[in-house]
Amino acid sequence: MALIVQKFGGTSVGTVERIQQVAEKVKRFREQGDDIVVVVSAMSGETNRLIELARQISPQPLPRELDVMVSTGEQVTIALLSMALSEIGVPAISYTGSQAGIVTDNVHTKARILNIAVQRIRNALSAGHVVVVAGFQGVDEEGNITTLGRGGSDTTGVALAAALKADECQIYTDVDGVYTTDPRVVPKARRLDRITFEEMLEMASLGSKVLQIRAVEFAGKYSVPLRVLHSFQEGPGTLITLDEEASMEQPIISGIAFNRDEAKLTIRGVPDTPGVAFRILGPISAANVEVDMIVQNVAHDNTTDFTFTVHRNDYNSALRVLQQEAAELKAREVIGDTEIAKVSIVGVGMRSHAGVASCMFEALARENINIQMISTSEIKVSVVIEEKYLELAVRALHTAFELDAPASKGE
Amino acid sequence: MALIVQKFGGTSVGTVERIQQVAEKVKRFREQGDDIVVVVSAMSGETNRLIELARQISPQPLPRELDVMVSTGEQVTIALLSMALSEIGVPAISYTGSQAGIVTDNVHTKARILNIAVQRIRNALSAGHVVVVAGFQGVDEEGNITTLGRGGSDTTGVALAAALKADECQIYTDVDGVYTTDPRVVPKARRLDRITFEEMLEMASLGSKVLQIRAVEFAGKYSVPLRVLHSFQEGPGTLITLDEEASMEQPIISGIAFNRDEAKLTIRGVPDTPGVAFRILGPISAANVEVDMIVQNVAHDNTTDFTFTVHRNDYNSALRVLQQEAAELKAREVIGDTEIAKVSIVGVGMRSHAGVASCMFEALARENINIQMISTSEIKVSVVIEEKYLELAVRALHTAFELDAPASKGE
Repeated sequence: MALIVQKFGGTSVGTVERIQQVAEKVKRFREQGDDIVVVVSAMSGETNRLIELARQISPQPLPRELDVMVSTGEQVTIALLSMALSEIGVPAISYTGSQAGIVTDNVHTKARILNIAVQRIRNALSAGHVVVVAGFQGVDEEGNITTLGRGGSDTTGVALAAALKADECQIYTDVDGVYTTDPRVVPKARRLDRITFEEMLEMASLGSKVLQIRAVEFAGKYSVPLRVLHSFQEGPGTLITLDEEASMEQPIISGIAFNRDEAKLTIRGVPDTPGVAFRILGPISAANVEVDMIVQNVAHDNTTDFTFTVHRNDYNSALRVLQQEAAELKAREVIGDTEIAKVSIVGVGMRSHAGVASCMFEALARENINIQMISTSEIKVSVVIEEKYLELAVRALHTAFELDAPASKGE
Repeated sequence: MALIVQKFGGTSVGTVERIQQVAEKVKRFREQGDDIVVVVSAMSGETNRLIELARQISPQPLPRELDVMVSTGEQVTIALLSMALSEIGVPAISYTGSQAGIVTDNVHTKARILNIAVQRIRNALSAGHVVVVAGFQGVDEEGNITTLGRGGSDTTGVALAAALKADECQIYTDVDGVYTTDPRVVPKARRLDRITFEEMLEMASLGSKVLQIRAVEFAGKYSVPLRVLHSFQEGPGTLITLDEEASMEQPIISGIAFNRDEAKLTIRGVPDTPGVAFRILGPISAANVEVDMIVQNVAHDNTTDFTFTVHRNDYNSALRVLQQEAAELKAREVIGDTEIAKVSIVGVGMRSHAGVASCMFEALARENINIQMISTSEIKVSVVIEEKYLELAVRALHTAFELDAPASKGE
């Protein structure tokens, strides 16, 4: 008999009918003899409705009170799902974050879980109940209601699975697993049976929005096996695990991630002296702009060029800061470009295989795609290219790394 | 500096604009130097919306889960009002029933308050906050969310006022006070400045729906001065108090209550033997029908007639039970009438004044209104009459007991 934590997001519980379908799914697991803890989000649209109501009162609502209000969204869902389970003969009991013993810090609207007192849940499981817990919320040590920030229900699921030492944490979504890349760009993209936490983190941060990144970090840290599945279709989904061995048998590259949310800034002809990188990036950071890729090449004529990427929303403010810096540093010029895209190949397999990067560059060269920036880590290689070549680049890489699904009989 | 508990119902907080108006009103009291605890209901319509959602899942939703769900209605209001107060410079903090320390029994959907741990509220008041508490809800001793049943926010207000030893509990409504009778029936009805708890109980239970009866009982039991006021108009409202002296100066009768929700049943010619009343009413009560007035007159020819009233909704089931009883008791016949109305005169003054009942009967006789049943208590006299005479009877009694407002200059 396994203990499974199942998390259903807002779309999966968006209507009464869907809540009833979720109840049926939970019942099937229950009938296999598993103990089930279900974590649910607010019905889709509800959180936005509540925030909108708050905004009508105050452009910047008190964070403490916003949490009191927004947390009602999940509270409604846990009650409805418990009723639906009971209606089909499955004993169920609901707990708010507070009742489930989820204690967080006191940073309202983006709190972090400190610990979970699981005795109450354990007792309810022992009494034969399915336990339905409100995701996304907790209480601080003084009993104030907190929320974990958007998407925090994934984190609740993983944290509960860790605290309960569950056998698996299942995240139900509107996709049937993690894909080698976005199937809308590459129709031949394949669902992965397994992926490691590290790979998933690179995939998630690079734009595959299946799972909240904090949840994946949390699952990796506490070795909670995480499975991504479709809410309303059958299938094994994708298991995210520590286990690298399984991945070793897979292709060197697990997937291709991409991102068109960034913009590129270059400051040219800055003096090549110690501390110049800090002098450039310090003010950018002070302006609350997050920097992603940073590239500095070797100097010539005692000056160097320095390039980095930021989110497109931050492009204008970063540009202003950089122009000011350029004047002080007597740099030659500042140039920028918003029409770029970042493409990354990700895979723990590349640790033990040489030539992965060159295979990537060769595939892009074959399509005449110019590489503007390159950045590498142990399990990924990222390049910046002109935005208009994004789809072409992703498809070329998907084929080059043998990720394409075999043609099915029907094709 | 006084400590005042103010309760605003669903209509008073039904829109964002109204919540802002309530915040302004609270601010004005605050500026007079008073400490304020505000109790609010769910925005009007919200509780029904939630119950309807639950009904879509289950015709008889689990009471525990219904409470989890329905209690979110007030939770949204407390957050919005706290935000609105903060927005106009009044420091405010919200507490759910649980956070406010309101402990109830575990009878879900109609729980009773057992005690209130007020330390948290006191600390917040000392820190200079207006405290906004969710009405209608609490937690049982095991931390399960409970609700007090419809209208329970009045009870929350009074219970908090009692626990905090507040100087006054103000109930804001859509009327500007308690009237001598329903102004829709008698345009000359007058607002009472004061009324005693006992009178208010008789008025409330007889159909003046200004206050929830449990709240009045509670206020009387703990001697909490209760004031009914209009949410959005200025005015002193009506003070409900223990103090009979004030009432002594008022007319003998404080008000005329009436009710057209009842039906009358008579069983005629039952043997006049001990235990017959129980044999008739026992099965009625076993059928979950509540009986209001009961009249049995002296016997003749060793048989007697027995008449009682029930809610009109229960008329058919009471009639069926009674017909069965009549057969077993060999009674002569069973007759019933749904077209009746009950009219009552209420006033602590009648304790010390003779002839109040005869004055009532005389006023009705003068209008040729036949009295079908009479029932009296220490502070009221009730009669049942034909329904079509209801308005005439109420107006005649209002004038006879000198309750009519003096004609204003404009009239």
